[in-house]
Amino acid sequence: MELVPSNSLKCTSPEDGRRLAISLALQTSLAIQPDEHVQAIIRDAYTNNPDGLIAASQVVAIEFATIAAANNYWR
Amino acid sequence: MELVPSNSLKCTSPEDGRRLAISLALQTSLAIQPDEHVQAIIRDAYTNNPDGLIAASQVVAIEFATIAAANNYWR
Amino acid sequence: MELVPSNSLKCTSPEDGRRLAISLALQTSLAIQPDEHVQAIIRDAYTNNPDGLIAASQVVAIEFATIAAANNYWR
Amino acid sequence: MELVPSNSLKCTSPEDGRRLAISLALQTSLAIQPDEHVQAIIRDAYTNNPDGLIAASQVVAIEFATIAAANNYWR
Amino acid sequence: MELVPSNSLKCTSPEDGRRLAISLALQTSLAIQPDEHVQAIIRDAYTNNPDGLIAASQVVAIEFATIAAANNYWR
Amino acid sequence: MELVPSNSLKCTSPEDGRRLAISLALQTSLAIQPDEHVQAIIRDAYTNNPDGLIAASQVVAIEFATIAAANNYWR
Repeated sequence: MELVPSNSLKCTSPEDGRRLAISLALQTSLAIQPDEHVQAIIRDAYTNNPDGLIAASQVVAIEFATIAAANNYWR
Repeated sequence: MELVPSNSLKCTSPEDGRRLAISLALQTSLAIQPDEHVQAIIRDAYTNNPDGLIAASQVVAIEFATIAAANNYWR
Repeated sequence: MELVPSNSLKCTSPEDGRRLAISLALQTSLAIQPDEHVQAIIRDAYTNNPDGLIAASQVVAIEFATIAAANNYWR
Repeated sequence: MELVPSNSLKCTSPEDGRRLAISLALQTSLAIQPDEHVQAIIRDAYTNNPDGLIAASQVVAIEFATIAAANNYWR
Repeated sequence: MELVPSNSLKCTSPEDGRRLAISLALQTSLAIQPDEHVQAIIRDAYTNNPDGLIAASQVVAIEFATIAAANNYWR
Repeated sequence: MELVPSNSLKCTSPEDGRRLAISLALQTSLAIQPDEHVQAIIRDAYTNNPDGLIAASQVVAIEFATIAAANNYWR
């Protein structure tokens, strides 16, 4: 299982970096517990549970901070 | 779906940066689960659940930290 | 609605920075959901729910980290 | 109400910095909601609720990160 | 018990860094409470509880931020 | 009560730094509420509650970030 797409934090733009942040954040659950059942309960949590979505948004924000620093904030 | 408005972290002022932080924080839920039902349950969480609002405030704070660093804190 | 008082992160002292951190942290809920009902449920959460207060304290800590960095830690 | 003791982040040692981090973390609740009732429910949360204590420990960790950076990690 | 594999934060690539982040994040529970029962309840939380998985994803994100900085973001 | 062992963030290795991070994270509860009852409920939370363990793992991750920065990531 590939944990970091293209094995790189280099992103051409903030938009690209945001996409990577979301991808990293969502992939971790599967890396921790690689089975189909987990995917189903996580997907359900995102569909019906606002707390799960807000918590996932926080994970995305933390991953994005790292990616933005890695790309020197696209300055 | 556009994830970062104007595909840029560059903001002219702290006020502008704060607005972007709120926008990024609130948009992530929709990026994770792009359907109308999700928008409704998130909006409901913000309307009736103080814990959801405080959790969302934390996401905004983390996004703002990144944006402020990207803009060298408007020094 | 003004999101950052005086549109500046510049603070003359740690005390001043702390006050700004609390202001930013508490204002976000209203920015997300600008109605009076939200103010009431948030105020109630702070009055009666220690978990809400501790969660809000965490948001303040994150905002303060940004403000302290912006002011080069008042060194 | 004084929010930052001695209005300074300067600490002579990690021990001193840790004490300031705990002080800042615990004081925020009172700054948000300055009444005696709040002090009582927070104290009760710390006495009987391990989740409250762990959440407060996280706030302390974030405040300590800021204080340590402000003191250049006492290098 | 070894807390940091190979006693090093040096990683050859983001993929390698991500693997270390997951390893550090998951190992902490065992370091805090080193018994088999804990392993079982944690494993169960990951299998059946989406909130546990999202919370663990956040820990991974924080560990990854440190590892990425340690490796100068593999620039 | 000593809050930072040896009053220093200097660690000879990542392993040593990790041990300090765990020590700081676990000690805060006792610093906040120094009585034996607290130790018992915290210990119980770690033994029986996966959420408590994951939350504590997050505190460790934040403390480790500070310690790693203090030691210039053992580069």
